[in-house]
Amino acid sequence: MCSSSTHHRSEPVAVDIDDAAEASAAPSTELIEELVAANQILFDQGVVDAFGHISVRHDKRPDRFLLARNMAPSRVTAQDIVEFTLDGEAVNANGRKVYLERFIHSEIYRARPDVVSVVHSHSHSIVPLSVVKGMRLKAIFHMAGFVGQGAPVFEIREAGGDATDLLISNNMLGEALARHFDGHDIVLMRGHGSTVVGGSIKQAVYRAVYAELNARYQLQAMQLGEVTFLTEEESRTCVQNVEGQIQRPWDMWLEQARVRRG
Amino acid sequence: MCSSSTHHRSEPVAVDIDDAAEASAAPSTELIEELVAANQILFDQGVVDAFGHISVRHDKRPDRFLLARNMAPSRVTAQDIVEFTLDGEAVNANGRKVYLERFIHSEIYRARPDVVSVVHSHSHSIVPLSVVKGMRLKAIFHMAGFVGQGAPVFEIREAGGDATDLLISNNMLGEALARHFDGHDIVLMRGHGSTVVGGSIKQAVYRAVYAELNARYQLQAMQLGEVTFLTEEESRTCVQNVEGQIQRPWDMWLEQARVRRG
Amino acid sequence: MCSSSTHHRSEPVAVDIDDAAEASAAPSTELIEELVAANQILFDQGVVDAFGHISVRHDKRPDRFLLARNMAPSRVTAQDIVEFTLDGEAVNANGRKVYLERFIHSEIYRARPDVVSVVHSHSHSIVPLSVVKGMRLKAIFHMAGFVGQGAPVFEIREAGGDATDLLISNNMLGEALARHFDGHDIVLMRGHGSTVVGGSIKQAVYRAVYAELNARYQLQAMQLGEVTFLTEEESRTCVQNVEGQIQRPWDMWLEQARVRRG
Amino acid sequence: MCSSSTHHRSEPVAVDIDDAAEASAAPSTELIEELVAANQILFDQGVVDAFGHISVRHDKRPDRFLLARNMAPSRVTAQDIVEFTLDGEAVNANGRKVYLERFIHSEIYRARPDVVSVVHSHSHSIVPLSVVKGMRLKAIFHMAGFVGQGAPVFEIREAGGDATDLLISNNMLGEALARHFDGHDIVLMRGHGSTVVGGSIKQAVYRAVYAELNARYQLQAMQLGEVTFLTEEESRTCVQNVEGQIQRPWDMWLEQARVRRG
Repeated sequence: MCSSSTHHRSEPVAVDIDDAAEASAAPSTELIEELVAANQILFDQGVVDAFGHISVRHDKRPDRFLLARNMAPSRVTAQDIVEFTLDGEAVNANGRKVYLERFIHSEIYRARPDVVSVVHSHSHSIVPLSVVKGMRLKAIFHMAGFVGQGAPVFEIREAGGDATDLLISNNMLGEALARHFDGHDIVLMRGHGSTVVGGSIKQAVYRAVYAELNARYQLQAMQLGEVTFLTEEESRTCVQNVEGQIQRPWDMWLEQARVRRG
Repeated sequence: MCSSSTHHRSEPVAVDIDDAAEASAAPSTELIEELVAANQILFDQGVVDAFGHISVRHDKRPDRFLLARNMAPSRVTAQDIVEFTLDGEAVNANGRKVYLERFIHSEIYRARPDVVSVVHSHSHSIVPLSVVKGMRLKAIFHMAGFVGQGAPVFEIREAGGDATDLLISNNMLGEALARHFDGHDIVLMRGHGSTVVGGSIKQAVYRAVYAELNARYQLQAMQLGEVTFLTEEESRTCVQNVEGQIQRPWDMWLEQARVRRG
Repeated sequence: MCSSSTHHRSEPVAVDIDDAAEASAAPSTELIEELVAANQILFDQGVVDAFGHISVRHDKRPDRFLLARNMAPSRVTAQDIVEFTLDGEAVNANGRKVYLERFIHSEIYRARPDVVSVVHSHSHSIVPLSVVKGMRLKAIFHMAGFVGQGAPVFEIREAGGDATDLLISNNMLGEALARHFDGHDIVLMRGHGSTVVGGSIKQAVYRAVYAELNARYQLQAMQLGEVTFLTEEESRTCVQNVEGQIQRPWDMWLEQARVRRG
Repeated sequence: MCSSSTHHRSEPVAVDIDDAAEASAAPSTELIEELVAANQILFDQGVVDAFGHISVRHDKRPDRFLLARNMAPSRVTAQDIVEFTLDGEAVNANGRKVYLERFIHSEIYRARPDVVSVVHSHSHSIVPLSVVKGMRLKAIFHMAGFVGQGAPVFEIREAGGDATDLLISNNMLGEALARHFDGHDIVLMRGHGSTVVGGSIKQAVYRAVYAELNARYQLQAMQLGEVTFLTEEESRTCVQNVEGQIQRPWDMWLEQARVRRG
């Protein structure tokens, strides 16, 4: 157990991996465009501010993933997307700074073969919920069945001691966080935010938006009395049926994000 | 009682009804334009996001109603309006997907001849209010007299069991919801949202906007102490007099919606 | 005591007073322009929506005041300003509909010679505060010293019975409201909103904006524990000194309102 | 101890100091541009409205600082920046009105040689937190480690009596406020707002934005139960590591502010 994670941190400016054979395995242009759009949508919908990030598993190499360089999501373009290994090493950073917390993504992709996209954010209702002792985010409405019967809360002190910066800034902490999912699709991080996973970029974005709404409604409802949450079966049926509709908000969010940036 | 409503669900892509005699009964252009405007206003005023819908009873055939195809309300145009029977069957979908929850509308029009327009939404203060045990939405200010002395809360478990997706996705559930109105003009749906009815598109839109505000104020006031709600007579007088002014917000909302979409 | 105020209501379409001698006493163009700007600012700052209004005492005839015709404040232009007597009768409506609640303004101008401008609104934090039993709006920060040691709450049931529409729709109710000020500069109206007065349009607008903020902060603070409000002397000193700065927000709000309407 | 600070107040229109030798020590253009940008960002991010101000220590004369003339931050341009001595006297006001509260800045620069920039604001969640008896702002998430283990609350009654306008309008009150920091980087001011300091303009702006968010989350979390705050060591590590990322939000905020003003 370390008293501070700063000593274990990989360099923010990543060293590229020399791997000539990889030119043939470039990710599809559509995937990169969708990832760029997702960055803009997450900002436009208030899920991320200058911090937070979304990644997607490489469509030709499941042992790689794509994530923007270290920058505000709202400003990401296709040129800013960097490829990473499942150790969190940048393949083609070319000297660009990368996110300190890329290990959130790498270790989840390693631990969960079913996961195609990961969103990490500090959205406004998730943070307060994450610090109330004994409180768990639970599915409160049909749009957020994926939240289930109580999302795990990751307490970094258990893995990193009580003097960290709360960031998932190395493989060990990423691995501890990934383990914490334990079959769930969202984990809250105490005093920090949340990480949500999905089977596609659109599903991960959808879940990040509606996890925030679920938290907001839960904060309000719990102040007034006892709350009826979804049953386990309701949650499951909602995921199955409601998430079949995610193209609808995606199209609208994309249009909104584009109108706003002119 | 079914454990999941998914097996009873009509196909999302509706089969058209072959009915040549209907060409002469096309709804008026003005009605369709007003319905399109209502979609944009409801989005612009924050009542609906990518989900939620508004319908209007056909002005020439009271056994028919008009509702957009399956899409985000903010993007609806006149070309997207579909005609439905009171069984929730699309008359002219032409292969376009329709809303899973069209049965909210069809069964209310069948049960309530006085209703001309129906709004279903998941607005931000209605959802938390809908899940607090024992809580009822009550008229708290003069703009929302129509809320009355305690809006019914529809618990889908009573009609559909405890494993549904909470959606009103078949005639049986629609009929149960419609029955739940019991003379009221708004019903809350636990863990889901609300459905509001009116004698015109403008009235239904007005009520959807102010039901949300009433819920928001009620959530805030009830945290601080005992609340003075409107009396039954005050509610009634407010409906009678304040709702005579609904052209005023309509004109403003329409202008705002048009400015924002440029 | 009447069970409903609707029977006592003046006609919404006012009859003009034939008074040829008045041509010489037209209000100054600057005053009308300031009143139009105030309408736009109050909307832009979220104090009014499609409802609510601001008036100013006529600069040449203290027995007259100026108020827009019945319309949403955001849409008011100089052509929409109507002149009224202190009985709430329109002088030059020319058949245009006027506000049902013009008697708020007329009776305050009659009762309070020091008042030059009146704002009536239903702003978002004032309404919930107005319905909590025993609660009084009190000055919580230096920008809102004018709120003082507890704003009176007008309970319309005392003057109009328990079956009104809560509107101040005749002289009698206006007079009861005006009397309720009792030296204060703001009165809350239960289940309805508030009315604020000032010695100028700018002061009344300033107070309407900051009364809303005071209510918002008070709602939040009172949920967490005992609150330190301003002392009576602090309130007084704040009014004296802080309100000397009101040109600053006015200039900014005007610029914002103009940018937003393009 | 005075019962009102108004008698001790310097004239709002400051007398310039005649000092010909100073032409050679003009602040750098970059510093002034950054200060102008900071004014716009603080408005755009909702930290200041028409009130509140940011200053920076002169880059060539540590006994001087730069602050806008008396105006709304959103409207500040390079021409509006005035130079002040550590007594709060304007060097080049040329008859322009200056802020009543410039003594917040002058006395902090005098007392804290490490401070390069000071933000004073009345942001929306700070004010309610400042008036709840016994409550202290504490670091609740990793972005706000600088808040530490409980920010001091400045009660002006201790220095100025209970009849002030709560403004820091003379050197004595500024000195009392500066002393109150006691090694912290933020002080709350009861019924008024907060003052935040940083080692650069960007750091002070960053801290003002995230202090508001910390207050917002703390208000929400404390309504629901016992809260886990950052430990002292976590706070320290967060400051050290997270604040290394402040260029990222700065770039985004600047872009946003510029897009919004067209």
